[in-house]
Amino acid sequence: MNEFDWIEWINKKAGPAPKGWIGIGDDAAVIPGLLKKDIVISTDAIVEGVDFDQFVRPEQAGRKALAINLSDIAAMGARPEAFLMTLGVPPSWKKNKLQRFICGVFQLAKEYRVHCIGGDMSSAQQFFCSITILGSAPQKGVILREGAKPGDLILVTGDLGGSIRKKHYAFTPRVKEGMWLAQNVMPSALMDVSDGLAQDLMHILKASRCAARLELNQVPMSKDAINIHSALSDGEDFELLMTMSRRNYAGLLRKWNRAFPHVSLTSIGVMMKGSPQIEYCFEGIAQKNFKVGPGFQHFS
Amino acid sequence: MNEFDWIEWINKKAGPAPKGWIGIGDDAAVIPGLLKKDIVISTDAIVEGVDFDQFVRPEQAGRKALAINLSDIAAMGARPEAFLMTLGVPPSWKKNKLQRFICGVFQLAKEYRVHCIGGDMSSAQQFFCSITILGSAPQKGVILREGAKPGDLILVTGDLGGSIRKKHYAFTPRVKEGMWLAQNVMPSALMDVSDGLAQDLMHILKASRCAARLELNQVPMSKDAINIHSALSDGEDFELLMTMSRRNYAGLLRKWNRAFPHVSLTSIGVMMKGSPQIEYCFEGIAQKNFKVGPGFQHFS
Repeated sequence: MNEFDWIEWINKKAGPAPKGWIGIGDDAAVIPGLLKKDIVISTDAIVEGVDFDQFVRPEQAGRKALAINLSDIAAMGARPEAFLMTLGVPPSWKKNKLQRFICGVFQLAKEYRVHCIGGDMSSAQQFFCSITILGSAPQKGVILREGAKPGDLILVTGDLGGSIRKKHYAFTPRVKEGMWLAQNVMPSALMDVSDGLAQDLMHILKASRCAARLELNQVPMSKDAINIHSALSDGEDFELLMTMSRRNYAGLLRKWNRAFPHVSLTSIGVMMKGSPQIEYCFEGIAQKNFKVGPGFQHFS
Repeated sequence: MNEFDWIEWINKKAGPAPKGWIGIGDDAAVIPGLLKKDIVISTDAIVEGVDFDQFVRPEQAGRKALAINLSDIAAMGARPEAFLMTLGVPPSWKKNKLQRFICGVFQLAKEYRVHCIGGDMSSAQQFFCSITILGSAPQKGVILREGAKPGDLILVTGDLGGSIRKKHYAFTPRVKEGMWLAQNVMPSALMDVSDGLAQDLMHILKASRCAARLELNQVPMSKDAINIHSALSDGEDFELLMTMSRRNYAGLLRKWNRAFPHVSLTSIGVMMKGSPQIEYCFEGIAQKNFKVGPGFQHFS
């Protein structure tokens, strides 16, 4: 299959573009003003040997390529709408393998009703897949990292740590949860945990110019987490991390458990006045000598 | 420099986002409804060793990464507004080289007033840069490949062929020209010539369900083109290829030359009834045995 055969095959897989849109096939795609809502846009790439290994099924790698992008849209409280996909394909990736990878992408796209509206393909020595995803902002506006206030509670969805064992391929992007939060709770800050809780919480602290106190014994550890350090810094959890005023917290858990009976929501600490740093506590007592390993970084 | 140092460095280079926008730094960027215009979006990647070689200055490679994307927006008659950039960086790309590449991107971004609003960075074995570009549709709507009618003239900007010698790094994306055409002429079909004139014209013929007669002696050959085959199929010309009704053509050249004194606009043929194929003519006489080599394809 040459480049144009692939575009045709992908176009068929993608199905017809939503009414009024122009999808794959011209020099660019066209989206009609997204119902006049603000546009949320993000991009994330996966590289073979970095983000997935040769032992994983191509469908799972394809799934991950889209899932990490869906997670970024969820982290704004937004609704994912469409995506573009660029593939770099080495000669070792035969037709069947590439088709299976793309099927993994489209399987998840179907679940989340996001439409593929464009892309690019290139030959490469090492496989990569870069996806750009578009979403529409929630009615009350997107939720950024910068709105947290001293006194706000810090909460996290699901369990953390040990994602490398399985979850980083199979995680459920918290899209419904993000949209529900934007609609019902309006967190003061929201992001997804991709580089490890400790490192990602620091992003909220820097953006919001606050400190935080984190209760180590309240951090929800995955059964694949080796220890608390694993839950704090393994990365690729793709859970939602948020802050919210105590006032909004009253009654939230009951409503949450009704909406998401299979996803936990755990209060793990509180925002404090001060420069961006985390005070770690165990059962309420500050652990002055507690040190967290670094979260994931490229080129570290 | 680690990943976050790079993001900060790039953020500084990018400068503040336009008013009301959210740029680099959160989980996603936010664009406020683009003045209620339709959104045009496209993506294109370059890979080291495929789209540029090790002899080129990194600035020129960076320039090309954005220029090919600007050309896609030009090919819709749209105005480029913003872009996202994903980088895959091998260990051999030291700090200085990567900075020079990024400076090449931002130099051109400044010229065309497009703002970098996001991106991603990954380690990789081979350098790649995938850019997604957003534009706003022209007032009268985008110009697709599918609107050409039998009898329409076929025109091309600039000169074709031999781009590999220099032009593919240094070409001027025809953004102003595309916007001008959408405003003043409303071509019936428009695209950019990236895979070679013969192959790209076929895209218009297929989309518009027409045939074409091409006058070989009228095809504007670049001084770097070896022969007519080179002008028809070398690729990476990044000129605009368009069709338009004869009625609109009257008086166009005078207006064009006033608006773009340094860019030629050449009539090279005419659209015909029939299934998608090109009849090659020389001084009006059909050349039945004339064969064109294939244009550029990945995985061909």
